[in-house]
Amino acid sequence: MPTEPVMSREAVIAYLDEVFPQIHHGGPGPVVESVGPLTASLRLPYHERHLRPGGTISGPAMMALADLALYAAILASLGPVALAVTTNLSFNFMRKPAPRDLIGEARLMKLGRQLAVGEVLIRSAGEPDLVCHATGTYAIPPRRN
Amino acid sequence: MPTEPVMSREAVIAYLDEVFPQIHHGGPGPVVESVGPLTASLRLPYHERHLRPGGTISGPAMMALADLALYAAILASLGPVALAVTTNLSFNFMRKPAPRDLIGEARLMKLGRQLAVGEVLIRSAGEPDLVCHATGTYAIPPRRN
Amino acid sequence: MPTEPVMSREAVIAYLDEVFPQIHHGGPGPVVESVGPLTASLRLPYHERHLRPGGTISGPAMMALADLALYAAILASLGPVALAVTTNLSFNFMRKPAPRDLIGEARLMKLGRQLAVGEVLIRSAGEPDLVCHATGTYAIPPRRN
Amino acid sequence: MPTEPVMSREAVIAYLDEVFPQIHHGGPGPVVESVGPLTASLRLPYHERHLRPGGTISGPAMMALADLALYAAILASLGPVALAVTTNLSFNFMRKPAPRDLIGEARLMKLGRQLAVGEVLIRSAGEPDLVCHATGTYAIPPRRN
Repeated sequence: MPTEPVMSREAVIAYLDEVFPQIHHGGPGPVVESVGPLTASLRLPYHERHLRPGGTISGPAMMALADLALYAAILASLGPVALAVTTNLSFNFMRKPAPRDLIGEARLMKLGRQLAVGEVLIRSAGEPDLVCHATGTYAIPPRRN
Repeated sequence: MPTEPVMSREAVIAYLDEVFPQIHHGGPGPVVESVGPLTASLRLPYHERHLRPGGTISGPAMMALADLALYAAILASLGPVALAVTTNLSFNFMRKPAPRDLIGEARLMKLGRQLAVGEVLIRSAGEPDLVCHATGTYAIPPRRN
Repeated sequence: MPTEPVMSREAVIAYLDEVFPQIHHGGPGPVVESVGPLTASLRLPYHERHLRPGGTISGPAMMALADLALYAAILASLGPVALAVTTNLSFNFMRKPAPRDLIGEARLMKLGRQLAVGEVLIRSAGEPDLVCHATGTYAIPPRRN
Repeated sequence: MPTEPVMSREAVIAYLDEVFPQIHHGGPGPVVESVGPLTASLRLPYHERHLRPGGTISGPAMMALADLALYAAILASLGPVALAVTTNLSFNFMRKPAPRDLIGEARLMKLGRQLAVGEVLIRSAGEPDLVCHATGTYAIPPRRN
């Protein structure tokens, strides 16, 4: 498995802004804070469009954060040539997140030729407890050499 | 298990509009088309904010549709007194949906005292093939009698 | 998608007995009752080794049944040349199954070149209620033509 | 959340042997190697009944190990009074495990009044790479005080 990212944080941000302008629709979307070996950490800035009844951050906001965090980790590891496709995502919601920024830390557990598998730990910024745990599988298209 | 919904389609729509105004943030959100015994069918109108690279509908748009469809089915079956909390959601993405409306059909497989479990079939409007299959679990708060 | 199985029920049984003798270790294992277009139905005969505390059928017995049912549906659809590998399985357990035979009905929702995705409905023999719902993804190895 | 187990490793083993004699049916089953704060580590001794075609350890053997590991972590944390019921299990299979002992390390991410949620990392004994990652949810029955 590769041990160093092939794209920098800045390169991942520029690529996502180019291909995923929708993530900032209606307000600021997730921001890549760092990338590392098979990892990426993203922050979802608090915005009222992410609220659900009761004043907590909604499940769909967390799901979008998790999907993008895994995608960023794959991008950082493989580079922009590969358009990975999500095939499976599974979420356990454990606590209701307060109306604050969320941090999603993605880690790839497998980066194979055809499939990447990873997990994402989501917490409220500055809090130790997990609010959501996600796992995801991505199909990696064949690469020409 | 109850066999008839306790809330009409119109009542579910009115309740969701009241407690979930965010679902229409930035453009029209999912619309409840029908409710039935342990079921609900929702349509997500096409909007460019739901696109992802390649011009297909994004995973997060499908995930938000699935979560809301299951929530609508629970609401219709239990009434507005119960604020169900999503504890688990799992998605298999099978085909890339064309840039069109999506239909999500939710069906509860279990509606117990503490947990509801259901599935959602998502298709492009007018197409027979599934683009996504979701399952979800919801914790139902204790009800006073 | 293929509409007719390429292996008969008898051929699937013979193949499974040859490559999976372990499924009958310690007592009779699941039996293929029928195969159809993208489907397979299996029966797990009751045996006390499948019990868990409280006298109900254990989760692992249901999980093994679901995995084999999906594998049988893939076999019936693709033939014995393809050794599919399970990449993801997800289970919702909804009711405790009585100490009786279980029936698992598998249906493939997608049979692509690289991935197959299906669901399994598990019930106690003769009962209408679901005891478990499973979804699974299988990687299909490249086939020579 | 509790920080110290209320049952020792020996007490968990004795309890499992009493209520789950089936786990050793047909050969040695998983062995609890240690318990800690919200954690349990189990070893599945290699046995040919766990093999699948190709000579690797089967998915059902890993699934049974994961379920028991989470159950052991809950037992160690709550004591034998609570009969937790599995409501959801989700597995990502990442590598084919060689015909050797498997180690399953369970960690509870949430231990609430009604639900416990945890993950299990499964590796071949002595190997660093994950062969399987599992997450599970368990319903905890009401406790009298």
